Amino acid sequence: MNTLPTKMHALQIDTYSEQLSFKYVEKEIPSLGENEVLIRILKAPVNPSDLAFVTGNYGFKKDLPVIPGMEGCGEVIAAGSHKDAQSLLGCNVACIAGEGDGTWAEYMVASPYQCIPFSESVSLEKGAMLMVNPMTALALINIAKQGGHKTIIQNAASSALSNMIRFLAKQEGLTVINIVRSRGQAKAMTKAGMPYVLNSSAKDYQEKLHSLCTELHASLLLDAVAGQATADILDAMPEASTAVVYGGLSGEGPKVSIEHVIFKNHKIEGFWLAHYLKDTQVEELKNMGEQAQVLMAQDFEIAIQSQPKLEYASHSIAAYAGNMSRGKVLISPHQE
Amino acid sequence: MNTLPTKMHALQIDTYSEQLSFKYVEKEIPSLGENEVLIRILKAPVNPSDLAFVTGNYGFKKDLPVIPGMEGCGEVIAAGSHKDAQSLLGCNVACIAGEGDGTWAEYMVASPYQCIPFSESVSLEKGAMLMVNPMTALALINIAKQGGHKTIIQNAASSALSNMIRFLAKQEGLTVINIVRSRGQAKAMTKAGMPYVLNSSAKDYQEKLHSLCTELHASLLLDAVAGQATADILDAMPEASTAVVYGGLSGEGPKVSIEHVIFKNHKIEGFWLAHYLKDTQVEELKNMGEQAQVLMAQDFEIAIQSQPKLEYASHSIAAYAGNMSRGKVLISPHQE
Repeated sequence: MNTLPTKMHALQIDTYSEQLSFKYVEKEIPSLGENEVLIRILKAPVNPSDLAFVTGNYGFKKDLPVIPGMEGCGEVIAAGSHKDAQSLLGCNVACIAGEGDGTWAEYMVASPYQCIPFSESVSLEKGAMLMVNPMTALALINIAKQGGHKTIIQNAASSALSNMIRFLAKQEGLTVINIVRSRGQAKAMTKAGMPYVLNSSAKDYQEKLHSLCTELHASLLLDAVAGQATADILDAMPEASTAVVYGGLSGEGPKVSIEHVIFKNHKIEGFWLAHYLKDTQVEELKNMGEQAQVLMAQDFEIAIQSQPKLEYASHSIAAYAGNMSRGKVLISPHQE
Repeated sequence: MNTLPTKMHALQIDTYSEQLSFKYVEKEIPSLGENEVLIRILKAPVNPSDLAFVTGNYGFKKDLPVIPGMEGCGEVIAAGSHKDAQSLLGCNVACIAGEGDGTWAEYMVASPYQCIPFSESVSLEKGAMLMVNPMTALALINIAKQGGHKTIIQNAASSALSNMIRFLAKQEGLTVINIVRSRGQAKAMTKAGMPYVLNSSAKDYQEKLHSLCTELHASLLLDAVAGQATADILDAMPEASTAVVYGGLSGEGPKVSIEHVIFKNHKIEGFWLAHYLKDTQVEELKNMGEQAQVLMAQDFEIAIQSQPKLEYASHSIAAYAGNMSRGKVLISPHQE
């Protein structure tokens, strides 16, 4: 520990581009602040949101050049003097990138609020994906509970995240209305025994949604799509409902009418994990981290298509962009 | 009091139409509920929002046929047995229409929360306009205070309502950034000694707005315009700001991007006086009513172009629609 690395290899982008062009570079490791830790990155997944980020479609852009990678896991090998930082020293942590460089590198500097320690019973593969999906699902369910909502509507309801939301909602006694985009998805979910599945491309979608929303008093929308999808759902929701927009799969901002906000008294908010974690106490984060581990220990299958080293990851990322259904790409910077 | 009227004259619309066509009708007066009062309407103004309503452009439509008229004043001549209703008996009250028939009639049935009593020192002309503008201004300033905001942005800043908001904000030590649409308006307001006046049609508007928002930490937008105006202002506001949309002068819903809600953590809400009053305790309403009277006693000039009887009001409403700057039309159903 007394001979800390000063340089690291990383994947870097110099420009936001649909070309998915990464440079394999050597970079200085920044010096640690008082309340920061140095993480030796072991696994870092390529998520759809990473692809959106590097192609400039994420909505948020960092100063260039930058190392991408929203999440990952690794070992804390150095820590500043602050007690929160010190408490993580030697731990395996799941981590989320901050405003600067991300996880597609041999090392990352992070604040304690960007980290959750995980136990040895959690595999590195699952640990690397402990942040974005499980923590988002936990945070969204917290928002539902704090708002006193009894029924949640979620679109993009066949995603891994939606699956976790459903699991947690059930534990909390919350009802979920699931919206998917195709008849096939709807059929598969209904066949799997899921109640309240709607296909947004069906002719009677709006009518069915309206009667379900009324019957179940569905007052919270967890919106991954935005655009017209938001407006259609807000139309159907009872007065004084809330839309929490956490994704923009439609490529558009949420469509909102005067009637929605003024006469129906709906509220539109956003959710970004980075904001949520920053506003959450370290103790509560640890608590959520433990819940996230329990959640990942459930039978959420994680298909992995490849685990490349950093220097070969460009090819794997391109392959993932071409076919996500083959499974995740997990970059493994310190693989022998 | 023992011979209550059972029928009344009123202006009625049978359809929403740009033609501004009203019928002068005789109608049954509905019987009173336990917590309702019967108001003998003395004065009822024609507001821009009334014109929007009768032409079908208000966003909210009532079942037809219906008596328009959002606000007015009169004497409570009968009350149900509930103590809140009884407390208003014999009072002069300002009133706001509910979900059914409005104030352009000889009588209106209302719940106590739709009424605020006013003292004899307030003229009927001012009493008739005590609800919509003063109560909205008071409610919006309450929202600013409760949200801990220090600086408010308001557009349509040369309106009578904006003038009241400015007056109340000053009392409360809140700073106001005023946005108007023309150089002439901006010049006039700046000449009158108002600080922080911006012209949204100026080339450097966005830049100036951004630096003012940052300097003054303007975290609350009171938005009467919506559409692109909302997006432009949200762009300039600091993280985690709130837009309260209370009007749609642009004719569009508020434009909101993924960046606004997710990455900048802005919230979008609406304000409708009817919701606000319904959610407010009767005691607090009385308190606000007293403040509204104090507010109206200020030197807010009210130009009046005509005070027609009901049967002649159609012409006056058409004249008002053609030229609002000549002053208000105050319908006077019981004028001799």
